[in-house]
Amino acid sequence: MPRRITGTTPRQDGYRMPGEFEEQECIWMLWPCRCDNWREGAGPAQKAYAEVARAIARFEPVYVCAPPEQYTHALDMIGGTDNIRVIEMTSNDAWMRDCGPSFLVNDKGDLRAVDWEFNAWGGLVDGLYFPWDQDDLAARKVCELAGADSYRTDGFVLEGGSFHVDGEGTVLTTEMCLLSAGRNPQMTREQIEEKLKEYLDAEKVIWVKDGIDPAETNGHIDDLACFAAPGEVVCLYTEDKTHPFYEPSQAAYRFLCQQTDARGRRLKVHKMCATQKPCYLTGAETIKTMEGTAPRKEGELVIASYVNFLIVNGGVILPQYGDENDALAIRQAREIFPDREIVGVPTLEIAYGGGNIHCITQQQPKKKTR
Amino acid sequence: MPRRITGTTPRQDGYRMPGEFEEQECIWMLWPCRCDNWREGAGPAQKAYAEVARAIARFEPVYVCAPPEQYTHALDMIGGTDNIRVIEMTSNDAWMRDCGPSFLVNDKGDLRAVDWEFNAWGGLVDGLYFPWDQDDLAARKVCELAGADSYRTDGFVLEGGSFHVDGEGTVLTTEMCLLSAGRNPQMTREQIEEKLKEYLDAEKVIWVKDGIDPAETNGHIDDLACFAAPGEVVCLYTEDKTHPFYEPSQAAYRFLCQQTDARGRRLKVHKMCATQKPCYLTGAETIKTMEGTAPRKEGELVIASYVNFLIVNGGVILPQYGDENDALAIRQAREIFPDREIVGVPTLEIAYGGGNIHCITQQQPKKKTR
Repeated sequence: MPRRITGTTPRQDGYRMPGEFEEQECIWMLWPCRCDNWREGAGPAQKAYAEVARAIARFEPVYVCAPPEQYTHALDMIGGTDNIRVIEMTSNDAWMRDCGPSFLVNDKGDLRAVDWEFNAWGGLVDGLYFPWDQDDLAARKVCELAGADSYRTDGFVLEGGSFHVDGEGTVLTTEMCLLSAGRNPQMTREQIEEKLKEYLDAEKVIWVKDGIDPAETNGHIDDLACFAAPGEVVCLYTEDKTHPFYEPSQAAYRFLCQQTDARGRRLKVHKMCATQKPCYLTGAETIKTMEGTAPRKEGELVIASYVNFLIVNGGVILPQYGDENDALAIRQAREIFPDREIVGVPTLEIAYGGGNIHCITQQQPKKKTR
Repeated sequence: MPRRITGTTPRQDGYRMPGEFEEQECIWMLWPCRCDNWREGAGPAQKAYAEVARAIARFEPVYVCAPPEQYTHALDMIGGTDNIRVIEMTSNDAWMRDCGPSFLVNDKGDLRAVDWEFNAWGGLVDGLYFPWDQDDLAARKVCELAGADSYRTDGFVLEGGSFHVDGEGTVLTTEMCLLSAGRNPQMTREQIEEKLKEYLDAEKVIWVKDGIDPAETNGHIDDLACFAAPGEVVCLYTEDKTHPFYEPSQAAYRFLCQQTDARGRRLKVHKMCATQKPCYLTGAETIKTMEGTAPRKEGELVIASYVNFLIVNGGVILPQYGDENDALAIRQAREIFPDREIVGVPTLEIAYGGGNIHCITQQQPKKKTR
């Protein structure tokens, strides 16, 4: 059933990407196992992924997609859990947000998806590993499983974590990422903006200048800011001038406070704290070096942001780092999402690998008829 | 969600295996690619599998499960077809009937399955290849995809093609297969019969002595006879004494005509013709020999049986061999199944690999509430 749609765009066909806060059908995840990215043979990361999956499964179904050589191990760790299914899927690493599909809905109860070209966050310019062919296939495989027709953007590179939408015509992204040399250097900012509008059904793109993660994702927005609801965004915020995230988060906060969305609403910007102490990688000696993979170094800055949470039906799954601000982040999230249960999950091991809860998940929205 | 049920059996829990003629939800298949089993790098077999999938898809959804290295090729060959989804699944070969789950239903609208231990038709005694670990996992993976709890029969080896059920308490099988030395030699016939009754919810097992395929499957029943409806079986039948299937099919026909089912009905036995000319393997030089795999030899007898068809919702997918009796088989099937459309598919290439349409498919029944 699932087809490739060619010759038209989602906007032309009446499909839009819903906001993450809209009702969801399920969550898709991959399964980590690269010894050249994850500490200690990926065991601690797998434990953290499993905890995230279990936390989400309290709210809605989760599909955890593990490569064949890890299948029974993933089953052992999370199989038989209510609402979790373990599916075989080969991948290069485990970032479903970035290589998975961006799901779309129309008003007639149909589901489709955008299958962005994926090049491991910068391809041969500044990507993180080679090859990335199996990651690039993940969106297609998820679409087959979900029964969703898809739009493939050959020649246009993008990751799901590099933008957020409000589902009502507004896209939030960063110049640092979308104008990076490793993605679509042949395109102008205007051309890229037009692509976002056509494939997400948007009228306005809000361009934050810099993200907090220049090195790996070229500054994905999902570490820095996101929509909590139409007209409301959450932004990383710290007043500690010595914090490595101080400058980009302050700049983003001030910028977002001045913006209006596609419907002309002035954005309400919620502050979300940073960790009190920056996190730095330890135990890098247990990470194997491999040809073709950007090496991890002892003491490198870890992108430990509380903003990299996932909104699910009735809940928010929030990273916890063992930091003094963990509890503050939970309190802030409760104020931002008064109708949702806030579930903290210790995810420092995921941050060590380069992302967090939002980066490792992808929501499939419920079909809707209006 | 899918769990392993331990400590009870399907019979105890109120689950039975429905007859193939009962309403189905979908059909599961694998994807052939072993160069040491299939001619010409498996290309012609893949084409035949794709034709079978397309034929089934006219009646109900089909899931074709292809290993990762074949995924895009399988997509190319059958992706985008209405009712067909291509799913990643590693396997050792491509016989979903034999390594896939045997689905069960209860009267409350629930679905479960039996996950038989699989050992490649005889394990180290007379199995066809080593290893078979990925085939043995296929049932579990399908259960995760289907959301079905399962009963695993560790220590009891069986393939789905070695028995047929009428869904009303009767099992049809062969002594040649179920009493073979490579499966459950530690068990008596009575113990094996008890297992069948417990896991399929049956009261009576009808033991045909020999199948027509002693060499590969140790005489699977699904090449020889099957249920067309409760109280009605189809049996291979030829009066040509020189035909290699003459003796076992005549013996089975005469035996079945004398049998009653679990409900005490005398079986009505429909005759299904054999090919007019026996089929023998040609082109064996294009099949690669591999350590651990039983070699295929030029001129070996091919188990080309018209009985190895698949019943689907409103249809029957019937093998065609380019034999003079192809049309007769279709006519006979029309008489046996007057309410179903009979669709012939050329499957000689599948027979060259050791089975046919029934062997490469597994039906998932519709859930039922009474």
